[in-house]
Amino acid sequence: MTQLEYALKNKITPQMRRVAKAEGLAPEEICAKVACGEVVIPANRNKSKPKPCGIGAGLTTKVNANIGSSEGHISIAEELKKLKVAVKYGSDTIMDLSTGGNLTAIRKRIIEESPVPLGTVPIYEAVVNCVRSKRSIANLTGEDIFLAILNQAKEGVDFMTLHCGVTRNTVERLKKQKRLIDMVSRGGTFLAEWIVLRKKENPLYENFDEVLKIARKYDITLSLGDGMRPGAIADATDRPQMEELVILSELAKKARQAGVQVMIEGPGHIPINQIKANVLLEKRLSGNTPFYVLGPLVTDIAPGYDHITGAIGGALAASYGADYLCYVTPSEHLRLPDVDDVREGVIATRLAAHAADVAKGLKRSVEWDNRMSKARRERNWKRQIALALDPEKAARLRRSSKPLIKDVCTMCGEYCAIKLSEELRK
Amino acid sequence: MTQLEYALKNKITPQMRRVAKAEGLAPEEICAKVACGEVVIPANRNKSKPKPCGIGAGLTTKVNANIGSSEGHISIAEELKKLKVAVKYGSDTIMDLSTGGNLTAIRKRIIEESPVPLGTVPIYEAVVNCVRSKRSIANLTGEDIFLAILNQAKEGVDFMTLHCGVTRNTVERLKKQKRLIDMVSRGGTFLAEWIVLRKKENPLYENFDEVLKIARKYDITLSLGDGMRPGAIADATDRPQMEELVILSELAKKARQAGVQVMIEGPGHIPINQIKANVLLEKRLSGNTPFYVLGPLVTDIAPGYDHITGAIGGALAASYGADYLCYVTPSEHLRLPDVDDVREGVIATRLAAHAADVAKGLKRSVEWDNRMSKARRERNWKRQIALALDPEKAARLRRSSKPLIKDVCTMCGEYCAIKLSEELRK
Repeated sequence: MTQLEYALKNKITPQMRRVAKAEGLAPEEICAKVACGEVVIPANRNKSKPKPCGIGAGLTTKVNANIGSSEGHISIAEELKKLKVAVKYGSDTIMDLSTGGNLTAIRKRIIEESPVPLGTVPIYEAVVNCVRSKRSIANLTGEDIFLAILNQAKEGVDFMTLHCGVTRNTVERLKKQKRLIDMVSRGGTFLAEWIVLRKKENPLYENFDEVLKIARKYDITLSLGDGMRPGAIADATDRPQMEELVILSELAKKARQAGVQVMIEGPGHIPINQIKANVLLEKRLSGNTPFYVLGPLVTDIAPGYDHITGAIGGALAASYGADYLCYVTPSEHLRLPDVDDVREGVIATRLAAHAADVAKGLKRSVEWDNRMSKARRERNWKRQIALALDPEKAARLRRSSKPLIKDVCTMCGEYCAIKLSEELRK
Repeated sequence: MTQLEYALKNKITPQMRRVAKAEGLAPEEICAKVACGEVVIPANRNKSKPKPCGIGAGLTTKVNANIGSSEGHISIAEELKKLKVAVKYGSDTIMDLSTGGNLTAIRKRIIEESPVPLGTVPIYEAVVNCVRSKRSIANLTGEDIFLAILNQAKEGVDFMTLHCGVTRNTVERLKKQKRLIDMVSRGGTFLAEWIVLRKKENPLYENFDEVLKIARKYDITLSLGDGMRPGAIADATDRPQMEELVILSELAKKARQAGVQVMIEGPGHIPINQIKANVLLEKRLSGNTPFYVLGPLVTDIAPGYDHITGAIGGALAASYGADYLCYVTPSEHLRLPDVDDVREGVIATRLAAHAADVAKGLKRSVEWDNRMSKARRERNWKRQIALALDPEKAARLRRSSKPLIKDVCTMCGEYCAIKLSEELRK
């Protein structure tokens, strides 16, 4: 049985207990949320991870970090380092998006080492195998795709991005739309191209029951991919994006009816003023399916700083109800991220997730801020550093600039407002 | 005559022309906005700066960078370097907040070198002089404060933060409120302490007409300081903050009636869900006085990353109508910022300001994004880098990781979605 099926039978699983403890909620509450599909707990039946996490309404906002090789950059050691750093700085899940080297070998090592749930995009492996055997994408078969899904499910992958909403209809809408940038989703583009070349329907859409069969067997949480996510502010919230969201919402319902856990993925490049509508639409159309957003990036012009662009969009999206933020690193739009990029990306996204949780009034999140402010008032620097999102950096900056008076900092020195205003209390 | 008085007489000044050109608007439009007080152009009559800027409704969001010495860290050379870096990365104004070393000498050099308007907080100089002559803050006189204002006005300062709203009433409200952190505004704390020690009214409030006389004579734009800005998420949008805002709104009206340009300063530590209300309140209470916000910081727990915390809050505030963002650097809450911090702070804040301008649909801002996305679609890397917010960093990241195929990047390599989706167009 899947977590969803257990929940529907009112059976509390060890994973639900673990999630309840992490969230400070009752196991019964988690069970009820999983039962109605508002929360998912990605947890492959074949390979349990030490730190499962719950994703969805009423829980803290979760963060994902993408790692993985590309054709020109292949090092298992470096990917394992990225995994370690991402988890250290608070990534709740990891996605392995490798397309270079021995994909199975890399994935197996990551699955072995990861304490948190692991996601993949199986179409990558299917396409890479196809290209390596000198076949064109047109020669890819539905069997190739389903084989990749099945193999990865057996290996212990917890959730999978499947671009089931890239259909003949969606591609037609895309053509009519005349976007500034047609597509930026790799998996989505593979399928769109396949549809155009083969003049056939997307196998993941046409044979969605087959997808559900595998997902149910291994309890793979489906992450319905947004192949049509806008890659430019000019293309945000347009007709192909909506067409796909409508389809994904229908499929989400179908998945839940088959006992399969499901999330929906969302944009992308979205201006600040359209983020609320995007979250509301996903929640309304899909009956509160957990919403997994990539960014959103609130402007196109900041390569090198897209972790900040994504933190702005992510904080806003999560404050409106998005449940799960995929990180963006400073290297987005420029290169494959390195280990430092992974750290910067995870921290910025964690910051955004937490700021949203504070805005939503989640008790533990608010208490964290209050403890920090109390330490600040008391000018207790040890506690301020211990409570910091990144204690190492906070300590480094503090150490680098010694104040003449011990209990203040070098910003204001003896004119520290917090210290002076203590007089007012007396 | 001040810019406001010229505008009320329908006279277009060289500064209005310069601002109109920078904004892509008609000089008449700028003149009308200045006349009704919705826009200010800080421009000291004694010392014109090469790049004046307009701040207010309908214009692009402006960014300020704070520089200046502190008692333990005094180097004119370093402050001038900070000035240069801040202006290079797009700071529209500079504030000199020095409290260490020879304040007049530092300020004079900054005024000489700055191509953009310069702001100060004259109470700092008054208090520093008082402390250096071994007097307590209680011995500070109204004359000391007005002398600092007058001297700085003569030297060529363009705008001044004056905490006129820290009154006996406000301080009473603060005491009743029982905040987590009473005050974090340095200037505000000096005055609050003075009020408590002397049991007298704030001279800047009581003798506001005197303030207006100097401001009118030199065309100093008043930036009415928020001494009661919350320094903890727990204290956001509370009674002392509102009491002060009401007072500042009344004073803003009085200033305009005297022909003096005026802005109002705002918070501070504010959770995401309270930012919209804060902007709306300032605009409604004060009759659309330009709103200058510090951050806002949307969580307390991220020392080392408060440029990102501030970018989230600033982007949101500006998208709702805040006009002017004071940067926050990674060193906030930890130390006096160094040159690198200044760069990081300015870039993050510029990013936030631009994202807000895109959300507001400002034509030139939207066009910048569209040009970048077009370059991205064409995989024109030279143009992408030239259009980047920080071309040097974008170029460095791109150079550091060479793709096997020239026109893509190492994130996706040959599986570049943008490249593959071109096939769909054919």
